[in-house]
Amino acid sequence: MAQKPSIPKGTRDFSPEEMAKRNYIFDTIREVYALYGFQQIETPAMENLSTLMGKYGEEGDKLLFKILNSGDYLRGIDDAELLSRNTARLQSRLCEKGLRYDLTVPFARYVVQHREELALPFKRYQIQPVWRADRPQRGRYREFYQCDADVVGSESLLNEVELMQIVDEVFSRLGIRVCIKMNNRKILSGIAEVIGEAERITDITVAIDKIDKIGLDGVNAELREKGISETAIAQLQPIITLQGTNGEKLDTIRTVLQDSAVGLKGVEECTYILDHIEGQLRNAVELDLSLARGLNYYTGAIFEVKALDVAIGSITGGGRYDNLTGIFGMPGLSGVGISFGADRIYDVLTTLDLYPKASSTGTQLLFVNFGEAEAAFCLNALRTVRTAGIRAEIYPDAAKMKKQMTYANAKHIPYVGIVGETELEAGKVMLKNMETGEQTLLSVDELVAQLQQ
Amino acid sequence: MAQKPSIPKGTRDFSPEEMAKRNYIFDTIREVYALYGFQQIETPAMENLSTLMGKYGEEGDKLLFKILNSGDYLRGIDDAELLSRNTARLQSRLCEKGLRYDLTVPFARYVVQHREELALPFKRYQIQPVWRADRPQRGRYREFYQCDADVVGSESLLNEVELMQIVDEVFSRLGIRVCIKMNNRKILSGIAEVIGEAERITDITVAIDKIDKIGLDGVNAELREKGISETAIAQLQPIITLQGTNGEKLDTIRTVLQDSAVGLKGVEECTYILDHIEGQLRNAVELDLSLARGLNYYTGAIFEVKALDVAIGSITGGGRYDNLTGIFGMPGLSGVGISFGADRIYDVLTTLDLYPKASSTGTQLLFVNFGEAEAAFCLNALRTVRTAGIRAEIYPDAAKMKKQMTYANAKHIPYVGIVGETELEAGKVMLKNMETGEQTLLSVDELVAQLQQ
Repeated sequence: MAQKPSIPKGTRDFSPEEMAKRNYIFDTIREVYALYGFQQIETPAMENLSTLMGKYGEEGDKLLFKILNSGDYLRGIDDAELLSRNTARLQSRLCEKGLRYDLTVPFARYVVQHREELALPFKRYQIQPVWRADRPQRGRYREFYQCDADVVGSESLLNEVELMQIVDEVFSRLGIRVCIKMNNRKILSGIAEVIGEAERITDITVAIDKIDKIGLDGVNAELREKGISETAIAQLQPIITLQGTNGEKLDTIRTVLQDSAVGLKGVEECTYILDHIEGQLRNAVELDLSLARGLNYYTGAIFEVKALDVAIGSITGGGRYDNLTGIFGMPGLSGVGISFGADRIYDVLTTLDLYPKASSTGTQLLFVNFGEAEAAFCLNALRTVRTAGIRAEIYPDAAKMKKQMTYANAKHIPYVGIVGETELEAGKVMLKNMETGEQTLLSVDELVAQLQQ
Repeated sequence: MAQKPSIPKGTRDFSPEEMAKRNYIFDTIREVYALYGFQQIETPAMENLSTLMGKYGEEGDKLLFKILNSGDYLRGIDDAELLSRNTARLQSRLCEKGLRYDLTVPFARYVVQHREELALPFKRYQIQPVWRADRPQRGRYREFYQCDADVVGSESLLNEVELMQIVDEVFSRLGIRVCIKMNNRKILSGIAEVIGEAERITDITVAIDKIDKIGLDGVNAELREKGISETAIAQLQPIITLQGTNGEKLDTIRTVLQDSAVGLKGVEECTYILDHIEGQLRNAVELDLSLARGLNYYTGAIFEVKALDVAIGSITGGGRYDNLTGIFGMPGLSGVGISFGADRIYDVLTTLDLYPKASSTGTQLLFVNFGEAEAAFCLNALRTVRTAGIRAEIYPDAAKMKKQMTYANAKHIPYVGIVGETELEAGKVMLKNMETGEQTLLSVDELVAQLQQ
């Protein structure tokens, strides 16, 4: 009954080489999060569907993976209901649980459920997989990791400042040059308010975003096409052609938005953030009015990160939201967060060949196995070597030398210890550097000293 | 539309404190696995049901969480089939995927699927959650982590030796005193063969296991009750009353099993393993014939670990299996593995209060926030402090001092940096040791030096 094994569409196995690279990314993010006082939590893969449904729009509801109830999952569903074949309704009878779709909604649920235990502001990070029944395609998976950090319970813009520092620090450590794009939802609201086209803000930002490609005339044509009035288009001109430093841009916007309280608040917030990161970051921050990011979700600052040297979408994003926990009955709690896109960062590091050359978790030394007596000597040597913290192993079988060396090469093991008859008599190890081919006869203590260098 | 949020029965949220403890366990295991040359892999949470079904017995099939197919999941199921209400059959029409139930079957699937890429022997470890629709009860969860290491593609008993060293090393590092119990499936087969009761081996080991509680007469009575013949019971006597050192026990068993080739092979394997770990471990290894562990699964050495100072079941187990990948069309590949039970180890460490006192990931220093000017000074100080690798944060709002100190205490932050008007003028920080209450006025560089000690 042999089966040809495979895994579900859109899911992946991660090999040791891929895991080493992924852990390098996760460890870097984790370390920086901790350096800024964020603490890790984990939530279950399965959430009640009542927690998840309705939080990601109608399309999102469809993309949730639902878990069939255990036991007699048809109990309580009568024949008429079954035969109705109303899949959406039946689903809610067949399934109580679903797989988490992101880390944000489970986090909101966590905060509300554990509110009594939490010391606010609560700075948490979370690195876990999420699942979406999206049509799989290149670079889009049905299971992927998110790496989120959020602060809830503080309206201070210092949180935004620190999140941008975190972004800057992570990408500096990874060696990826980025541009951090910033905008503010209040500025977008202000623009919509000033030109009297509140519900057209998405059309407007989409059009503005094309200025480099289709030029000013093109943008204005597109705005007209979308039904934006001539007066509004005229008012938008300074914003469409917005140029200069961030400070100059803010000056222009401040003028355009002079009659919008919310707009001016957005300008003020941007100014505060930019003032406080002045000279603190290694990467550039650019005020970008075309940045919109999940309009119905964010309420203040929004950011997005682009790699400068690889053409790929946003590799990190985030922003301020004012009522995340309201839906679970705890209104008035403001939060701000970021999310690193691990899969895209993985691709950028691969494209730019930026992974560290030496593995920090791979085997450093393999003892070749020549038979019982030699292996016994190596077992003792291994004890000393491992006590010194050197990752080492012995080939478990006394196989042909060639096979053992092939194994060492396949695992990228940099040193091989050879103990044959001669070495055994001398109580020494012939240490071979796999890169240079150089061989040195050493005592076990000398070998430890050399590998520890 | 406020909802009272909760999580599914048998699942858990992990708070920052719990995560720190769990990570301490996982990191310890991970480090030791790497020290012995094991490499990490990950497999998807969802596997095809064809991969999972039939691998865990009939009961296991029921305990698999199944995922409802996306889209029109009723398509192709006619009315008659729906109304048949044959839940087991309908399930296979409604669901193609399930959540992994352990790490062993996905690992076997991985090995077969990726056989061309693997350099055998393949030493992999895997630390991921698994899901079982068990009835939730104290200490039993529907989502829990497994921490497995396996070697496949080598029949060498050196693998068993190294896995026992790993067990010994992990528990030594954690400070848990354990007894490693060992047995061999071939010895059990030998016993069954010699007494001609091959299919009764479970009854026999269960009875033998009770010797301490019910005495020799009790055990013999139970064997009789189970229908074991008087001849067989007589032959079993030396094994039921087995005593002495491991060597003495092996001598007795060798005599009893002198006519069983497979039994003698088991004795030989045990002898080899015990000889090779002689003097290498800090914890005791005990040959225990009553240890049976998944009889239909293992084929050679089996082990199980008990904590000496806490009454709890097995906290780690493993063994040799000879045909794990056969079911996926790749026969003849021998493997041996161990699995650490993270939840029980967590409980043991908690009971014995063995967690390290100082967190290796928590915030070390909190700057109190007295307002704009002071916060700006602190932001600069934070940059220096964090560059030195010290985990630090600033309270984001200029809240009341008491609230900020409560926050520091709730997060167990050992040092608080106070920069009020006086300190700001002096360009210094009042560093408060939260344990002793001691306060010292320091420059930022002096503060870094002190915290780095």
